[in-house]
Amino acid sequence: AAFADVTLSGDARMGIASVEGGDFNFSSRARVRFTLSGETDAGLKFGAQFRANEAEGATLDTETKVKGTVFLEYPEYGKLTMGDAEGAVQASVTQFAPIGFDDTKKLQEFTFLTGGDTGTSKDVLYTYANGALAVNLSLGNPGGSEGAGAGANGDDMGFGVSYTTEFWKLAAGYEDNGLNSQTVVSGSYGNGQFEVKGAYGLRDDDKSQYVIYGTYIIGTTTLTAFFRDDEFKATKTRGIGITHDFGSGLALSAGYAKAEGKKANASLGLTMAF
Amino acid sequence: AAFADVTLSGDARMGIASVEGGDFNFSSRARVRFTLSGETDAGLKFGAQFRANEAEGATLDTETKVKGTVFLEYPEYGKLTMGDAEGAVQASVTQFAPIGFDDTKKLQEFTFLTGGDTGTSKDVLYTYANGALAVNLSLGNPGGSEGAGAGANGDDMGFGVSYTTEFWKLAAGYEDNGLNSQTVVSGSYGNGQFEVKGAYGLRDDDKSQYVIYGTYIIGTTTLTAFFRDDEFKATKTRGIGITHDFGSGLALSAGYAKAEGKKANASLGLTMAF
Amino acid sequence: AAFADVTLSGDARMGIASVEGGDFNFSSRARVRFTLSGETDAGLKFGAQFRANEAEGATLDTETKVKGTVFLEYPEYGKLTMGDAEGAVQASVTQFAPIGFDDTKKLQEFTFLTGGDTGTSKDVLYTYANGALAVNLSLGNPGGSEGAGAGANGDDMGFGVSYTTEFWKLAAGYEDNGLNSQTVVSGSYGNGQFEVKGAYGLRDDDKSQYVIYGTYIIGTTTLTAFFRDDEFKATKTRGIGITHDFGSGLALSAGYAKAEGKKANASLGLTMAF
Repeated sequence: AAFADVTLSGDARMGIASVEGGDFNFSSRARVRFTLSGETDAGLKFGAQFRANEAEGATLDTETKVKGTVFLEYPEYGKLTMGDAEGAVQASVTQFAPIGFDDTKKLQEFTFLTGGDTGTSKDVLYTYANGALAVNLSLGNPGGSEGAGAGANGDDMGFGVSYTTEFWKLAAGYEDNGLNSQTVVSGSYGNGQFEVKGAYGLRDDDKSQYVIYGTYIIGTTTLTAFFRDDEFKATKTRGIGITHDFGSGLALSAGYAKAEGKKANASLGLTMAF
Repeated sequence: AAFADVTLSGDARMGIASVEGGDFNFSSRARVRFTLSGETDAGLKFGAQFRANEAEGATLDTETKVKGTVFLEYPEYGKLTMGDAEGAVQASVTQFAPIGFDDTKKLQEFTFLTGGDTGTSKDVLYTYANGALAVNLSLGNPGGSEGAGAGANGDDMGFGVSYTTEFWKLAAGYEDNGLNSQTVVSGSYGNGQFEVKGAYGLRDDDKSQYVIYGTYIIGTTTLTAFFRDDEFKATKTRGIGITHDFGSGLALSAGYAKAEGKKANASLGLTMAF
Repeated sequence: AAFADVTLSGDARMGIASVEGGDFNFSSRARVRFTLSGETDAGLKFGAQFRANEAEGATLDTETKVKGTVFLEYPEYGKLTMGDAEGAVQASVTQFAPIGFDDTKKLQEFTFLTGGDTGTSKDVLYTYANGALAVNLSLGNPGGSEGAGAGANGDDMGFGVSYTTEFWKLAAGYEDNGLNSQTVVSGSYGNGQFEVKGAYGLRDDDKSQYVIYGTYIIGTTTLTAFFRDDEFKATKTRGIGITHDFGSGLALSAGYAKAEGKKANASLGLTMAF
């Protein structure tokens, strides 16, 4: 039946963390997320989401500081998302979750050229899925945020496709931010107990990046390890993590991650989901 | 029975907009509103409301940036509202809703001299209704926001009265911000399918303003048009809008509005209420 | 049973207040608090809380502007709180609630050397209770907020103990912020109708402070008075307050408080809890 509603969820963490070999410090965080969702009698789904600490950014149409997303979905025709949306390549390819209690500074992150995480203005992402196949298209804001003139990311565009089976996921994408373009391929294989993932990106200046990422689950404990070589940012990173799940959203997590030539980030603590 | 509670509601929009002839850009927004409400056994109602992005402003007693309102209501004796409250004239006279997906920059807005929208400090509004008749009184903050000295809007005051029947609403008001005063009359007639509204304001320096605003409803589609001539701000504006309601809070809306001598604002997109 | 949830509560106030003899001004405020709470099947409790206007601060690990707290509790072994946590002395000794509609600038406040209210970075508080006896331990952040180097409150530590019976509460504590240390003793006696409380603190430079605070309840009306002599801040303050409870969270409150040599703060208005 038709409805429109606002719901709350949250997450928190508390523990200790050391950044690039510094002292271990207390580290904690608490966040709340608003999820707005509705559906018409005709089956059109619509909604939005943003965190309480992003409430200001979720009202903005500016070039920077845009937070939160709004969507419209008609299952048969796909889903349109606007705001701080992912680029199509990021939405298509394999994701590498942060490791360690406080994400250990996210050294596992693959570098994308377009989408919300690049921090430039408002993006639109269109997703269409049919069985195992999913297609993503994304566009940066065509003009300046207000008034005449081209916006900071007017040339952003991306395209991605993925094919997912019970065990495998294969994906590929192409994105262009007006300055550079990147072609990405990714693959993953997982059987519920272990998973191996990889992604490779080649920029039009012949610089490349890749991430290899593995996960192994023993009962309620998950081990993770990654290696990343990113020529775009001239950094090589690696890391390992372990998480023990207590249930009900509570987990104990430790992580160690290091960039070549720098001292390590290490973290240990509790993560909570509400 | 007695109670005290906090509830959530929200709104969002996504579409495209052009400001003063500039490029069409992506435009989106998501907001959540907190409504605090309570009632004692004796029938005293009390409450407050503010949006998540106004949470900081709702805690302030400063000269500027005040957001949100708090109220006390005893139905037989009226309602007292404090904070970012409307002035009494604005609260009494006919309202002109923004048109278009993103309000098309609110060019239809009547200009008031007092109340929260003028951005000066904290105001108080008292409303008393008895059948068709409603009376509003408002006052600006008597002193400086803290410490000695008169506040920015210490002289603000307003008075308004309205008479509402099934089809007609007539209202008049007088407001003074210490610098200028304004006398306003407004009227509206609507039969559920079409509505015509107008308001006229005369300032003590003999400058005047008026807005004429019409609405026509065809099934789930609403057409709106306005013309405004504001000598205070030396601007003449006009605009048209159309909204199609999908139900459940989802609507498709388009608007076109233009100030004389400037290029037009245009917008098209979805609005969502949760 | 196991669960994890986010709930809302709120508070608001509206009235008039004069600060240090200045004009009476409108004063109002509305706030919402998020409470995140969970429990595992094994009985581990965990959670977090912060206000909507503190949502940004609740995500920070910085030296300043930290807001909100996160906790883990295993009833048999105590409770660990991190974030903008109280110091152990503050958590142990008798509390002196603010008086008057707008707290009348909190002139009754005892001065603590450590803990969240001192504004320096992140703290940890451990609390263990066994029957009438409760023990508190607190620590400031061991290092800088990020990277190498000692943090602003790396030397902060506190210890406190309290013993509570039906009528009496006795408490004592010791805290050290690296610069100064303070020994505090406090006691209170209350029989449900009246309560007398006091706290005394002696700093290692032989400066001392004390607060005497009394409450008397007549039906739904509460009278409060305090006297404070604080040599740390070289201030002597006194005040009286009266609160009438309408039920359902609504109360009418008036307060008068004054520092020696300064003009008085006075306030009158409604307080609301949701």
